[in-house]
Amino acid sequence: MGIKLHGLAMSTNTSRVMVCLHEKDVDFELVSVNVFASEHKLPPFLSKNPFGLIPALEDDGLTLFESRAITAYLAEKYKETGPDLIRKSDPKEAALVRVWAEVESQSYDPAVSPIIFEYLVSPFQHKEPNQSVIDASLEKLKNVLDVYEARLSETKNLAGNFFSLADLNHITSTHYFMKTPCAYMINDRPHVKAWWDDISSRPSFQKFADALTFGQN
Amino acid sequence: MGIKLHGLAMSTNTSRVMVCLHEKDVDFELVSVNVFASEHKLPPFLSKNPFGLIPALEDDGLTLFESRAITAYLAEKYKETGPDLIRKSDPKEAALVRVWAEVESQSYDPAVSPIIFEYLVSPFQHKEPNQSVIDASLEKLKNVLDVYEARLSETKNLAGNFFSLADLNHITSTHYFMKTPCAYMINDRPHVKAWWDDISSRPSFQKFADALTFGQN
Ligand SMILES: N[C@@H](CCC(=O)N[C@@H](CS)C(=O)NCC(=O)O)C(=O)O
Ligand SMILES: N[C@@H](CCC(=O)N[C@@H](CS)C(=O)NCC(=O)O)C(=O)O
Repeated sequence: MGIKLHGLAMSTNTSRVMVCLHEKDVDFELVSVNVFASEHKLPPFLSKNPFGLIPALEDDGLTLFESRAITAYLAEKYKETGPDLIRKSDPKEAALVRVWAEVESQSYDPAVSPIIFEYLVSPFQHKEPNQSVIDASLEKLKNVLDVYEARLSETKNLAGNFFSLADLNHITSTHYFMKTPCAYMINDRPHVKAWWDDISSRPSFQKFADALTFGQN
Repeated sequence: MGIKLHGLAMSTNTSRVMVCLHEKDVDFELVSVNVFASEHKLPPFLSKNPFGLIPALEDDGLTLFESRAITAYLAEKYKETGPDLIRKSDPKEAALVRVWAEVESQSYDPAVSPIIFEYLVSPFQHKEPNQSVIDASLEKLKNVLDVYEARLSETKNLAGNFFSLADLNHITSTHYFMKTPCAYMINDRPHVKAWWDDISSRPSFQKFADALTFGQN
């Protein structure tokens, strides 16, 4: 039985896993979850992820959730195929991949996700973007991107001079972020911008980037 | 040169790393960072962690930050010593360790940390606990702990019937959480309570648990 990914390509967390699967050239079946009908809050899906969130992945009798745990699992399982996303053979590089992947999870995502939500999701709920949420997130994001700009002026990618899981985990959320009026935060930082242009142009993402849209945006 | 851990034992993120070092029986030097004098926001420390947060770890020419990246690094480096925290030899168990470690980072910590802050840190800043922050965090935490209760009624520990990094990463924040008026959230869930009693009694933590205090609490 092949890999099944339960989720939706438009979801940043589902598509994060898809980018990883494509990097590794692994066949998989994307099984749609109808979140609009709350299918992810009902028993069949809850047995895959008890938190009722997409995505979930089934592989060979194993059921996993948490997109970043899944990308790390795939990077390990397919370490011989495609780019070495976790730098297995060099413990120091591997440690730096962990550090910068953790930065994405702990600092980048919590700053970027509320901005995406306010500008791109709220309108569908007929709500105005909440400016105080945006301002607080921008302040956090400024700190994070200042560190990224300094880092990326020294190394091509976050963990070093190589594309890794740390970069990969940023792609799908940043894709949406760049559609918000806050995109200047990245465009105005030359090294961050060059890094973004580079990682977002990877075929693993470009082959389905068009599917990442919440309606018209 | 031995391992240097820059931080403070009272900090949940520093002590998370200390528990891991003790599990692996690794000698290290704890180098105090005077956060009260903002030493962590000044250049010597910023070269260790550009985000200006404790802890940072130096090992053999490598400088790391992000406590969870550090515990994962140590678990890998010392996989032959002490308990196998990442289940190296079983890819399925290893994947489940990743999933539940990610749950701690993505769902448990964001619910628990604001409660610790409001009850145990705010008083030092002569502020009343902010009830709306506490209520919102409790709502998130309820969902998380309901899932834990169900999970821990099936397996002794989060990732399976073995102590792993997923459990370890919870210890130091939960220690403080149990000093807040919200401790009932854990005490009232029998499987979560048994798990907490078990993991918090590990010698790796007990040998310095007394150092985890913000003044009188
Ligand atoms: N930390 C989780 C987050 C999963 C998550 O929040 N998924 C969203 C879609 S991107 C979801 O299921 N939202 C539906 C809901 O909250 O009901 C991961 O990385 O997989
Ligand atoms: N995600 C980081 C968080 C580090 C962190 O927030 N450290 C706190 C101490 S527990 C700190 O340095 N606080 C001082 C400050 O915010 O200025 C980690 O896990 O290491």
